Amino acid sequence: MDGAIEKLAALFEEFPGIGRRQSKRFVYFLLHKNKAFSKDLTEKIEALKQEVSQCEECFRFFPKEKDHVLCSTCRERSSSTQVLIVEKDSDFNTIEKAGIYKGKYFILGGFIFDNEKKKSFARVDQLIQSVEQKLQNKKLDELIFALSLSPEGEYTRIRLQNILREKFPELSFSTLGRGLSSGVELEYSDSETLKYAFQSRLPQ
Amino acid sequence: MDGAIEKLAALFEEFPGIGRRQSKRFVYFLLHKNKAFSKDLTEKIEALKQEVSQCEECFRFFPKEKDHVLCSTCRERSSSTQVLIVEKDSDFNTIEKAGIYKGKYFILGGFIFDNEKKKSFARVDQLIQSVEQKLQNKKLDELIFALSLSPEGEYTRIRLQNILREKFPELSFSTLGRGLSSGVELEYSDSETLKYAFQSRLPQ
Amino acid sequence: MDGAIEKLAALFEEFPGIGRRQSKRFVYFLLHKNKAFSKDLTEKIEALKQEVSQCEECFRFFPKEKDHVLCSTCRERSSSTQVLIVEKDSDFNTIEKAGIYKGKYFILGGFIFDNEKKKSFARVDQLIQSVEQKLQNKKLDELIFALSLSPEGEYTRIRLQNILREKFPELSFSTLGRGLSSGVELEYSDSETLKYAFQSRLPQ
Amino acid sequence: MDGAIEKLAALFEEFPGIGRRQSKRFVYFLLHKNKAFSKDLTEKIEALKQEVSQCEECFRFFPKEKDHVLCSTCRERSSSTQVLIVEKDSDFNTIEKAGIYKGKYFILGGFIFDNEKKKSFARVDQLIQSVEQKLQNKKLDELIFALSLSPEGEYTRIRLQNILREKFPELSFSTLGRGLSSGVELEYSDSETLKYAFQSRLPQ
Repeated sequence: MDGAIEKLAALFEEFPGIGRRQSKRFVYFLLHKNKAFSKDLTEKIEALKQEVSQCEECFRFFPKEKDHVLCSTCRERSSSTQVLIVEKDSDFNTIEKAGIYKGKYFILGGFIFDNEKKKSFARVDQLIQSVEQKLQNKKLDELIFALSLSPEGEYTRIRLQNILREKFPELSFSTLGRGLSSGVELEYSDSETLKYAFQSRLPQ
Repeated sequence: MDGAIEKLAALFEEFPGIGRRQSKRFVYFLLHKNKAFSKDLTEKIEALKQEVSQCEECFRFFPKEKDHVLCSTCRERSSSTQVLIVEKDSDFNTIEKAGIYKGKYFILGGFIFDNEKKKSFARVDQLIQSVEQKLQNKKLDELIFALSLSPEGEYTRIRLQNILREKFPELSFSTLGRGLSSGVELEYSDSETLKYAFQSRLPQ
Repeated sequence: MDGAIEKLAALFEEFPGIGRRQSKRFVYFLLHKNKAFSKDLTEKIEALKQEVSQCEECFRFFPKEKDHVLCSTCRERSSSTQVLIVEKDSDFNTIEKAGIYKGKYFILGGFIFDNEKKKSFARVDQLIQSVEQKLQNKKLDELIFALSLSPEGEYTRIRLQNILREKFPELSFSTLGRGLSSGVELEYSDSETLKYAFQSRLPQ
Repeated sequence: MDGAIEKLAALFEEFPGIGRRQSKRFVYFLLHKNKAFSKDLTEKIEALKQEVSQCEECFRFFPKEKDHVLCSTCRERSSSTQVLIVEKDSDFNTIEKAGIYKGKYFILGGFIFDNEKKKSFARVDQLIQSVEQKLQNKKLDELIFALSLSPEGEYTRIRLQNILREKFPELSFSTLGRGLSSGVELEYSDSETLKYAFQSRLPQ
C-alpha cells in the first residue's frame, strides 16, 4: 500500500480528536505544501522538548529558562499558601486568563478512573509528596480542587480527598463553588446545580 | 390555494419553536388522524381556560378549584416569608422538581427589555403591589431572584432591584448562587463564572 | 395534578416531532394567548375536515370544492398516462414546486415495514385498484416510484413492484434516477450512489 | 510568552480544519508523549516527500518505486481511453473503493475560482497538455468530470469544458449522473436534483 502516507497518517490518528479521514487529509496537506513547511514543522517539533521545561513544583510546561527548574508562576508566588489543583495545562491558562486567583497550582495531568483497566496519568504520588513538603515548610493552608464537574472529575476529586485526608488530617480542602453558569437557562438546570445555587445564594 | 390547510398552518406557526414546514406537518397530521382526535383536541383547548386558573398571589397557572383564588403552593406555604422570582411557569416546575425550596414564588411572566420597543410581559406593577402588601403584613424577609443568567435575565433583575430598592429600602435581596454547573468543562468556563466559582468555593 | 394542562400536553405530544417539554410549552403558550386565539385555533381545526377533501383518485388532501371528488391536479391532467407514487402530501408539494412533472400522482400514505408488528398506513389495496382501473381504460403507461432512498422507502418500493408485477405483468415501472445530489461532496458519497452516478453519466 | 509552544501551535493551525484551541492541544499532546513519538513523527514527515512520488500522468501521490514515474493505476490501465477528472487524491480513493470505474484519472489539485484574487491550484495547463498528447496518440475517447456539485465545482467544470472545447472540438465530455443520493429524503430535495432525477429515471 501507500507506505509512507499510511504510516504518517497512523501517527496523526493518535492526535486528540483526529479520525482516520482527517489524518489522511493532514498527510495530503503536507504533500501539497512546499518542503520548507515540512522542514519548519519538524524543526519546531524537535525544538519543543528542547525549549520547554516541566515545572518541578506544579508540573506545568513552561519556556525553558537557564538556571530555572520552576515556572515563573511558582517563582513569583512562592509565598502563597494556596494550591489549586487542575487537570491540565489549558485549565491553568483558562483560570489565569480570568485573573481571579493569585496562588499556586498543581497540574494533575489526568483523572483517576473507576475502571482500573483504564490507565491513569494522574500524578498522585507527586501530589502527596508536594503536599507533605509544603506542610512541613508551613507553606500550605488551603488545597482547592478545580476539576471538571464530570463523573471522572468528581471521582478523581473524592479519591484524592480520601487519600490526602488520611495522610494529612489537618489539611483543609475546598472546591470551586457550584451554581448557575453564565448563559444557562434556569429551566434546563439540573436539580443538583439548583441545590448548590440555592444554598450559595448571593445577597445583592 | 389550500385555504383551510394554510390558515391552520399559519396559527401553528405562531407556536413556540414551530417553523413553516413543521406547521404544515401538524396540519397533515390532523388530516390523517381520525375525527375523534380533532374533537378531543378542540375540547381540551376549550377546556383549558375553563379549568385552569391563574393564582392571584404568584400568578402561576393551576387547576381551578372551587372557592380558591390562590394556588395550592401559595396556600400551603402561607407562613413563608421568602419569595422566589422566576420568569415562567416551567421554571417553577424545574425548581419544585429539585425539591430544594419550600417558600413562595412570584411568576414574573416575562423579561424587561433594554430596547423599549420590545413589548414586555413582566408583571412589574403586580410585583410592587405584592411586595408592598407582604411587607405591611410582615410576611416578607427575603426576595430571591432566580432569573436566567442571560443578558435579558440580568437586565431584568437589575431594573427590578433598582425599582424595589427605591420603594422598599429595608427589603433584602438575593440571587441564586453562581459557579460551575454540573457537567461543565473547566477549560471552557467563562471568566465571570470562574470568578463567582472561586469566591464561593466550598469547604469539603 | 394540573389536570387540563397535562391532558392537553399529552395530545400535543402526539404531534410529529414534539416531545414532553415542548408539549408543555405549547399549553403555556395557549394560556398566555388571549381567548380569541384559542377560539380561532379550535374553529380552524374544526373547519379543517369540513373544508378539505381527500381526492378519490390520488388521495391527496385538497380544498373542498362543490361537486368535485377529484383534486384539481387529477382533473387537469386527466389525459396523462403517467402516475408518480409518493409517500406523502409534502412530497407532492416538493415535486410540484420543482415544476418538472406534468402527470398524475398517487399518495401512498406511508411505508410498508419489514417488521410486521409496525402498523403500515400504505394504501396498497387502493393502489392495486387504481392501477387495474387505469389499465382497463388504457390510461396507464408508466408507474414512477418517487419514494425516499431510505431502507423503508426501498423496501416499500420492492414490495409494491412484486405485488404489482404479479397482477399486471405488462405494466412498466421506473424510479427516479439516482446519482449525485446538488451540494454533495464527492469524497463523502457512498459506493452505491457513485455506481448509479457513473452508470447514468450525462454527455455535456 | 511560551515561545516554542506558540510557534508550533501556529504551524498546526494551518492544518485543514484545525483552529487555535485544537492546535494548542496538539502541542500539549506532543509534550505529554515520550520522545520516541516525536522522533517517529519527524522522521515520517521527513520520509514523506522522499518516499512518495507524484505521478507524471495523473498527478496523484503514490509510493515511490524505482524506475517508475507513473503510478500503478496509470500503468495498469494504460490502454484505457477514459479519463475521470477529480479534484483531489481522496476523491480518487473514494471512487476506487466503490470499484465502479476501470479507466484513468486526472487529479486536478484544486478548483478554479470566480473571484480572481483567490489563488487556484488547479492544474489547467497540465490537463490541456495531457489531453493533447492523449488525443494525438488516439488514447482519449471520453473525459468524465467527477467534481463536487458545489458552486466552485460547477464553475470549475464549466470553465474547463469551455477551454477544452475550444482547443479540442472533437473531444466528448460527460459528468457523473445527477439524481437522488442514498439516504436522502425526497421532501428535502432541491428542484434541480429532482429535475435530473426525473430525467434520468431508471426502468425497473
